[in-house]
Amino acid sequence: MPEFVRRIPDGDDRERLVCGTCGYVAYENPKVVVGSVVAAGTSVLMCRRAIEPRRGFWTLPAGYLELGETIEEGARREAREEACAEIALDGILAIFSLSRIGQVQIIFHARFAGPASMPSFGAGAESLEVDLFSWEKIPWNEIAFPSVQLSLNEWRRLGAAPLGMPAQNPALDPRGTTKPDAASPEGPL
Amino acid sequence: MPEFVRRIPDGDDRERLVCGTCGYVAYENPKVVVGSVVAAGTSVLMCRRAIEPRRGFWTLPAGYLELGETIEEGARREAREEACAEIALDGILAIFSLSRIGQVQIIFHARFAGPASMPSFGAGAESLEVDLFSWEKIPWNEIAFPSVQLSLNEWRRLGAAPLGMPAQNPALDPRGTTKPDAASPEGPL
Repeated sequence: MPEFVRRIPDGDDRERLVCGTCGYVAYENPKVVVGSVVAAGTSVLMCRRAIEPRRGFWTLPAGYLELGETIEEGARREAREEACAEIALDGILAIFSLSRIGQVQIIFHARFAGPASMPSFGAGAESLEVDLFSWEKIPWNEIAFPSVQLSLNEWRRLGAAPLGMPAQNPALDPRGTTKPDAASPEGPL
Repeated sequence: MPEFVRRIPDGDDRERLVCGTCGYVAYENPKVVVGSVVAAGTSVLMCRRAIEPRRGFWTLPAGYLELGETIEEGARREAREEACAEIALDGILAIFSLSRIGQVQIIFHARFAGPASMPSFGAGAESLEVDLFSWEKIPWNEIAFPSVQLSLNEWRRLGAAPLGMPAQNPALDPRGTTKPDAASPEGPL
């Protein structure tokens, strides 16, 4: 049985999860999600999720940054795990704060590490299938999360221009608090 | 007594902190630190730390992002808490991965929210003193952390140019694994 209670530790100013037995404070902070828009020519790599939430919907290779990793290492690991793809990162495309769910998402602009003419990928354990899509063929009605759509939009908007300031939260949802409608996940964050 | 043990939960691929009694998995992931180089004209705002680590040394207003905040909100809160300053953010100046200590630091380029000619600030609870320094007067020998120096360097390098791609880890320490020497903290991350 968990012994944790919510209280304000001495010297702190907000409630934390504190072990009622030993006083250990399990700080809960936002987590970092790292992911990539991986392009091969004018097509992008997408993964159909094999796990909840949003099983069966399409996403970018992305996931939680782990201890001991740089953000680049985490993004490359996620592409390897979810899409069996070795990727090279060009830079940061977007940074989203999803304050509603305690996430900071860092999305890279990326390409395949090998020759672009022969992109190598496949479905990892958390993916039902993985494929390259031209812009028009992207399964827009089956996108897993709003930030996937936002990242793709930013990738498209950028085109061949050099990377500059990363895109951030959309004007419609500056705090990342809007709960997306499952029926139209292309809404705010 | 903490009941947590380190083991690999079912379906996972790395050790987690798991409650030996109830199986609760306390995922430990890197934490996000948000901070700012706050400029008033050609001077920057710095805080002398009242707490460990590096008590007595100078840092930027920065700290852990909390649940429910955007990265911008967190950076503004830290400036308020540590330097009693209301600030306005221009954009992201730098992003550092400190994989050695499980941090992702997001540093903003910022200014005082009020008139630049009358910057308002003071020592918050975690600061011994807070002051504005021209570049030459920055206490270079008493800087708390390498990333403070790197952020200041990047701010100086940028000058009046528009913000572009955020600076990232220095070439000397691409993974953020080098342990700084307490005697010369201006080294790698």
